[in-house]
Amino acid sequence: MSPAPSPADQVLRPMLRTIESIVDEEALRERLDAGEHLRIKYGVDLTAPNLHLGHAVNLWLMRHLQENGHTVVFLLGDTTTQVGDPTGRSATRPVLGEEEIARNAEAFLAQISRVLRTEPELLEVRRNSEWYGEMAVPQLLSLFAMTTHAQLMARDMFRARIAEGREIALHELTYPVLQGYDSAALRSDLTIVGSDQLFNEMMGRHYQQRLGQRPQSIITTVITPGLDGGAKQSKSLRNYVALEDPPGEKLGKVMSLADPLVGTWASAYTDLPDARVAQLEADAAAGGLRARDAKLALAEAVVARYDGAEAARRAREEFLAVFSQRGTPEDIPDAVLDLATGPHPRTLTALELLDRIRPELSRSARRRLLLQGAVQVDGVPVRDPEATLEIRDGMLVRTGPRRWVRVREG
Amino acid sequence: MSPAPSPADQVLRPMLRTIESIVDEEALRERLDAGEHLRIKYGVDLTAPNLHLGHAVNLWLMRHLQENGHTVVFLLGDTTTQVGDPTGRSATRPVLGEEEIARNAEAFLAQISRVLRTEPELLEVRRNSEWYGEMAVPQLLSLFAMTTHAQLMARDMFRARIAEGREIALHELTYPVLQGYDSAALRSDLTIVGSDQLFNEMMGRHYQQRLGQRPQSIITTVITPGLDGGAKQSKSLRNYVALEDPPGEKLGKVMSLADPLVGTWASAYTDLPDARVAQLEADAAAGGLRARDAKLALAEAVVARYDGAEAARRAREEFLAVFSQRGTPEDIPDAVLDLATGPHPRTLTALELLDRIRPELSRSARRRLLLQGAVQVDGVPVRDPEATLEIRDGMLVRTGPRRWVRVREG
Repeated sequence: MSPAPSPADQVLRPMLRTIESIVDEEALRERLDAGEHLRIKYGVDLTAPNLHLGHAVNLWLMRHLQENGHTVVFLLGDTTTQVGDPTGRSATRPVLGEEEIARNAEAFLAQISRVLRTEPELLEVRRNSEWYGEMAVPQLLSLFAMTTHAQLMARDMFRARIAEGREIALHELTYPVLQGYDSAALRSDLTIVGSDQLFNEMMGRHYQQRLGQRPQSIITTVITPGLDGGAKQSKSLRNYVALEDPPGEKLGKVMSLADPLVGTWASAYTDLPDARVAQLEADAAAGGLRARDAKLALAEAVVARYDGAEAARRAREEFLAVFSQRGTPEDIPDAVLDLATGPHPRTLTALELLDRIRPELSRSARRRLLLQGAVQVDGVPVRDPEATLEIRDGMLVRTGPRRWVRVREG
Repeated sequence: MSPAPSPADQVLRPMLRTIESIVDEEALRERLDAGEHLRIKYGVDLTAPNLHLGHAVNLWLMRHLQENGHTVVFLLGDTTTQVGDPTGRSATRPVLGEEEIARNAEAFLAQISRVLRTEPELLEVRRNSEWYGEMAVPQLLSLFAMTTHAQLMARDMFRARIAEGREIALHELTYPVLQGYDSAALRSDLTIVGSDQLFNEMMGRHYQQRLGQRPQSIITTVITPGLDGGAKQSKSLRNYVALEDPPGEKLGKVMSLADPLVGTWASAYTDLPDARVAQLEADAAAGGLRARDAKLALAEAVVARYDGAEAARRAREEFLAVFSQRGTPEDIPDAVLDLATGPHPRTLTALELLDRIRPELSRSARRRLLLQGAVQVDGVPVRDPEATLEIRDGMLVRTGPRRWVRVREG
């Protein structure tokens, strides 16, 4: 018999799927095993928020900890926002007005409350102007005195900037110090961040130690590629699913995901069981309509997580209806297919399907249609002539501009 | 006929002897020619002051400008003192109490008033806590935003530290920014500093420009070796003459100066005319008593500048009396010398003098006495057998322990 899982095991096990690393895991486990109540720092810059599935990975871990009785301390970085994560040679951002702070804070709370619990004992809302607003220059300098130039230069982003001959403004150099001291001011026990924030949060540990506190543990989470397979999900690339997207848009965006990412997304962005994730990954690898259906299942699970099962089901139906009908003429000719022959009566390759419904074309012309992306099956482009398609009665096949047939089994 | 000197020429000419370089001389000349009233920043760290002749070089230039109607703005760096000129890995200095600030400020004023005029229209006293005390963290960060890491790394002292593997604390990195912004806060037109402060004062120009002001000009002054010939005059080396030293101590210290420095010191530390400086330099090069007398003249001029001519004369007399009598027995035998022979009847080489007053010794023994430093003339060691001595009636010659003669002309 294996030993009973420790309290720490019980809390951490469901989190492991999206955890990349834990700094000072031992301390975290000790605290959990001792039944301590944790304060989990969740710091944000106070720009207009647009949280996406990538951000939500961290939020779901925090939600899980909330369910175990721990408190998320949501820190609005109203002072540090004016410094900003280093972004080239721009001057400081303009000082935020109270109104803008309130508006952005409200927007943040609306978005994070799609994941986090908001009872006051589980979600504490703070601003770092609480301490930086009252701090005098000599006090700030005494914080600076605890950190050396060499320590800051260890940050890969700073080194990269210097290597590229790009400038680092002095206020940017102080950003890790300010973010670090936040952890001490809040008495943070844990923070959950993307690995790009690891350096700044290590500064948090440094300041907590220098100021006589137990340093926070740090969980970094896996980074998942965007819809386009790129490493970074960003507004400018339009390659992410925002928490605020309406259910139909969420679903439609996930449907545009590249097949090889279905398993990764299912693992990071849904709470589907591991076995189901593996199944979706296998289906996606099979290609064709099996892949499409796997993606539909992923998309529905993503929507359900934020908007509920009912909204997800409706979004799925609407998606299928739209893609079955959008731009299609009222009177679509039927292509009656006899599927009784062949070893797999209900599947055909894409090229075999075209053989049957566009027999007037040469084989090379049919192949060209596919390669050009002119062929869609139920709204999904099919380019690979050898792609395996599962044939359903009523399936809508587009073979060129204004050329449609509805498949009927003969 | 040469053109009449411009107003700028008239002001600057007497200053040139101790000026090393002028940053933006053109702007300074324009301001002087336009008859503008200059604000001259003189910033100090608020540690207990111990101003010496080296510091006074800058003060005398400021005094000269005061005499021309300009105002010295004496800035007590009560905030920046807590940062301190970078000094290794020490933490910030303790915050100064009001009492200590007042005590140090009073000591500073006592010392600088030995040189500067103190009428309110010629000496304005400020503290940089006036602006840093009220400054909020975001404001400070917006100042930081105007300076880059690369700019700061251009400071040779920082580069040297990194090259040596020594640490630079972040607060030390901000020191040039704080000192620089002082120039903007004070609307400085000119500052007069040692070349080690050039970098920080260039930051002053940078901040003034960024904040829409005309940047200050910067005069750097020559650095003069200490009493021991070393580049740095410092407390720990005990190689300087402090403005607060009593007249006798000032004079005695200058008398310990190495002969080759007499001209340099006379040029930097007195207002003796150039021709007189050149004479003293030549006398010092001649060695022996001529050198000693040159040094006495230098020392008397130094004392007179700070303590008045009368105090200087007294100090000189006391010095001679002490060195003529200290440790000498009451009954000193006379050595009657016949000086009527030879081309220079009133001068002898050291060895010739010993030939006359210690005829019982061999020539090599007499030479050895000299080389061992056993021989003193009026309290000054004479080691060179060929040194030329001017013979005076009553001159006291020591030729070994408890062996003295008083020279009488025969």
